[in-house]
Amino acid sequence: MEEKNTPWSKKENIDKKESDNVIFIGEKPLVNYIRGVMTQFNRHGAEEVIIKSRGKFISKAVDVAEVSKRSLEKQGIIIKNITTSSESFEVQGKQTNISSMHIVLGR
Amino acid sequence: MEEKNTPWSKKENIDKKESDNVIFIGEKPLVNYIRGVMTQFNRHGAEEVIIKSRGKFISKAVDVAEVSKRSLEKQGIIIKNITTSSESFEVQGKQTNISSMHIVLGR
Repeated sequence: MEEKNTPWSKKENIDKKESDNVIFIGEKPLVNYIRGVMTQFNRHGAEEVIIKSRGKFISKAVDVAEVSKRSLEKQGIIIKNITTSSESFEVQGKQTNISSMHIVLGR
Repeated sequence: MEEKNTPWSKKENIDKKESDNVIFIGEKPLVNYIRGVMTQFNRHGAEEVIIKSRGKFISKAVDVAEVSKRSLEKQGIIIKNITTSSESFEVQGKQTNISSMHIVLGR
């Protein structure tokens, strides 16, 4: 079974490639994330871009998706899917939930 | 064609009934909106509840939807659909867009 294992360096490359079309929304200005989406579609020829966000950044993620959609609609890019989920974790012995959202943009 | 017009009082009732299962997210505490969703399903027998939000309240709307879904999952309530859009308006002569989101909960 040894030969089936992916060498670490190769695995790393795959991970990087797969996560390239994922934009995580955080503290940076809105325009940075919009530029990230545009670059994925226009320069890297991505078929899909996934905008991921959590908690208070969810509102910002919707702004990024809406602005990107307007800028890319002539290229046939639409919001294909929106899903939400909850992530559970422990803070000072107390169970806490945080909402998260994935927005998929594509043709 | 006169007889086809809905009398105003009747129309008002229809409007009220139709909007009963819509929860608008705003400044109130999270629990108020969650209670609103629960009441629609459990007391008023709603088939669907639509959670509407705009701008910074979008994050809160996702929290309301996620908590409600967890509380109602034994009754078969799921998040059926999520859509986003942009509303355009003028502030001091400048065109501004605000993102909005509709989350549909139902069976």
